[in-house]
Amino acid sequence: MIVRYERIAHVQERMREQGLIAIVVLNHDDYRYLFGEDRWQPRALIPFQGAPELIAFTDEEPELRAAVADGRVRVFGSVGGQINDIVGRIRELVAEGAAAGIPPGASGRPRVGMQMWFQTPAFLVDLFRHVNPKVEVVSSDPVMDALRMVKDPEEIILMTEAQRIAGVGMDRARELLRPGVTAQEIAAEATYAMMRAGAEGTSTPIFVNFGIETCMLHGRLSPRPLERGELVLVDLTPQVGGYCANLARTFVLGEPDSRQAELLAAYREIVAAVRAAMRVGITTAQLDATAKEVCAGHGLAEHHVYGIGHGIGLRFEEPPASTIIPQHRSLPLLENMTVTIGHPVLAIPGFGGARFEDVYLLTAAGPEILFDYPIDPIIAS
Amino acid sequence: MIVRYERIAHVQERMREQGLIAIVVLNHDDYRYLFGEDRWQPRALIPFQGAPELIAFTDEEPELRAAVADGRVRVFGSVGGQINDIVGRIRELVAEGAAAGIPPGASGRPRVGMQMWFQTPAFLVDLFRHVNPKVEVVSSDPVMDALRMVKDPEEIILMTEAQRIAGVGMDRARELLRPGVTAQEIAAEATYAMMRAGAEGTSTPIFVNFGIETCMLHGRLSPRPLERGELVLVDLTPQVGGYCANLARTFVLGEPDSRQAELLAAYREIVAAVRAAMRVGITTAQLDATAKEVCAGHGLAEHHVYGIGHGIGLRFEEPPASTIIPQHRSLPLLENMTVTIGHPVLAIPGFGGARFEDVYLLTAAGPEILFDYPIDPIIAS
Repeated sequence: MIVRYERIAHVQERMREQGLIAIVVLNHDDYRYLFGEDRWQPRALIPFQGAPELIAFTDEEPELRAAVADGRVRVFGSVGGQINDIVGRIRELVAEGAAAGIPPGASGRPRVGMQMWFQTPAFLVDLFRHVNPKVEVVSSDPVMDALRMVKDPEEIILMTEAQRIAGVGMDRARELLRPGVTAQEIAAEATYAMMRAGAEGTSTPIFVNFGIETCMLHGRLSPRPLERGELVLVDLTPQVGGYCANLARTFVLGEPDSRQAELLAAYREIVAAVRAAMRVGITTAQLDATAKEVCAGHGLAEHHVYGIGHGIGLRFEEPPASTIIPQHRSLPLLENMTVTIGHPVLAIPGFGGARFEDVYLLTAAGPEILFDYPIDPIIAS
Repeated sequence: MIVRYERIAHVQERMREQGLIAIVVLNHDDYRYLFGEDRWQPRALIPFQGAPELIAFTDEEPELRAAVADGRVRVFGSVGGQINDIVGRIRELVAEGAAAGIPPGASGRPRVGMQMWFQTPAFLVDLFRHVNPKVEVVSSDPVMDALRMVKDPEEIILMTEAQRIAGVGMDRARELLRPGVTAQEIAAEATYAMMRAGAEGTSTPIFVNFGIETCMLHGRLSPRPLERGELVLVDLTPQVGGYCANLARTFVLGEPDSRQAELLAAYREIVAAVRAAMRVGITTAQLDATAKEVCAGHGLAEHHVYGIGHGIGLRFEEPPASTIIPQHRSLPLLENMTVTIGHPVLAIPGFGGARFEDVYLLTAAGPEILFDYPIDPIIAS
C-alpha cells in the first residue's frame, strides 16, 4: 500500500475550503486514488486535517499496519464495533471542526462527505445518517471530482496500458467473428486474452451484441449465434491498477447492406468530426452538436443521441459524466482530462446500431488517442 | 424476456399486506427474479396491483416491447423524461393506493419500497426522495427477502450448474499451483475455464491469496509469486443465469508445517460438524457455536470469527446474511434455503488462514451439498 499523502493533502485543503469535517470513503475508486491499492470492502475516513484513517477488520489489522508502517494511518480494529468507533470519531471531528472554524451546512449541522455515485450503497448512507444525526451527509463529489477529473502522468500510463490491453481483447474478438460463433465464446476468449495480457478483470461485463440487439444501449451478450450479414458490437472494459479502458467496435460479417454501410460511415465521420473539434474549453454539448450535424448529413438526425463521450479513469464513467448528469454537458473540458468519444449507439430502432469508442487524453494541442486501434469494420466471410 | 407474473403476483400480495404502493427496482438481482433476464441498467416499477412497468431508453423500446408482446408491461420511453414519468406515475399510485386502502407509513406518507443492499445507489434513492417528497422510501427487503430466500427447483438447477462450474475453475487453479505461479495467472486461467464451461462471469473478483495474505478477510490477488510451503486460498464465484456460486479451497504447496496442518484440520472438522448440525429451524448463531467449539478443541478459539455461512442466490451474499446483518444470525433456516458454509477465514494473524466453502441446499432431511467438490489441500511439490 502506498498512501498518497499529497493527494490526501489536496483533498483536505478542498474540504476545509468547502466546509467538510470528514469524508467517509466506501468506494473502490476513491480508495485506490488515496491509498494506492484496493480491498474488497474499502473503508476509510479522511478528516479535514491530520492522518487518514483506515477502517479494518481485526484479521486484516497486522497486514494493514505493516503496509502503512510510517504510522500515519489509524486502524479501527474491533469487529462489530466499527459503527461505534466511527460515531465516536465523528463526534470528535465535530468538536475539532468547530474549533478550527469549519462552517456548518445550511441545516446548521457540520457536513460529512460521501461519494454520490452508483457504487455508494444507500443503506450504508442511511445507516450513517441514523447513527450520526448531528451531522449532515453531503456529496463529496465537489471535493473529489476536480482532483480526479484531471489525470497525472502516472494515471495516464495505467490508462494507456489498459487501453492497449483492450486492443488485445478486440483483436481476439475480431478473429473469432464467423457464422455460428456465440457472444459467450467471444466474451470468454476476449476476457482470457485481456487477463493474460495483464488486466485484473473488466470494469463492466463485456458486451457482445449481434443484429437487432446492437440497438440495445446497454445489452449484454446476445443469446443466439452470429449469422452472416449481421452487425456485431463489441465493447471491452479491462482494468489495470483500477484504471478503466473503454474500446468499442462495430463489425459486419460480410458485405454490409446499404443501411449498415450508412451507419458505419456516419459513425466513422462523427468520430473524425468530434476529434477535430475537441479542444480545451469545449463542452460535450458542443461536441454533441457536431455529432448531430454529421448525423443530419447522413439523414440520421432523428436517431442522434446526446452524450458523445464521458470522463473515464478509476471509474468507468466519471465526470464529465455527460450521459448521466445533464449539467456536465456544459462543463468545459480541461487539459489532461481523459474522455471517451463514441459512447452512444447510433441506432435505427428495429434494425441495428453502430459505434466506435476510444479514450483520448486532452492536451493543449488537442486530443491524443491513448491507443490507436484501427476502425476496420468489414469482416470477410 | 420471460416476465415472472406469478412471482410478481406474490410480491404484490405482500406489498398490499405490508402497505407499499410501489417497489422501484434498480438492481440486477430483483430484475432477474421478476423479469427473467438482465439489463445493464435494470429499471422497473412494480405497482401494488396491475401490470409491472419497465423503464427503458427509447432505443431499447422496440426490443423490449417485442420481448413482452403480451402487452402486460408498460414501457416508459422518453430519454431524459424518465424522472418526470416516474414522478407522475408515483402521484397516480398515491391516489390509487389511498382508494384501495393501502395504509401510509408512520410519517403519514404512502410508502415506496427500494432494495436496501450494496448495489442500490444512494444518490438515486436521494434523488427519488427529492422529487417525490409526498412518499416515504422504505426498504423493500421485508417484501422480497421472504420470497427470494426460499428457492424453487428452477433456481436450484441454475445454482447447481454454477457450483459445478466453480469446480471446473478450481480444478484449473489447483493444477497450476507450483512455485513461481502468480495469482494473476491463476485468476486468468480459472476465469477462462469457467467462462468456457458456461459462466457469464463472476459475481465478485476472484480471490487468490498466498502466505500471510490468506489472513486477509477480503484480499484480492497476491502481488508476488507463490513459494514452496505457502498456504494458498482460492475463492471462485461464477454466475449462471444470474445465480451465484461460491467455492473456496485452501491448499498448501508441499508438506504443511504443524500450524498449517492444524488450521486445515480444524477447518475440515468445522465443516463436518456444521454440516452435521444443519437442519430446518437452526440459526447461524447456533452453527457458529458449533464451529467455535471445534476451534476450541484445536486451541484456536481466540481466532474464531462469527458468520460461518450466508444465504446465496441471485446475490452473492443474501439473507440470511449473518455476516452483514447481525439480526440475521438468529433467523431460523428454512427448507429450500441455499446457504454457504465456510465463509470466515480461520486465521492466525501474521501467519495465515484457511477455509473450505461450499453451497448447500437445506432439505427437510438436512443439508445437500450442491456440488461435492473434494477437500484435498496438500499439493505435492
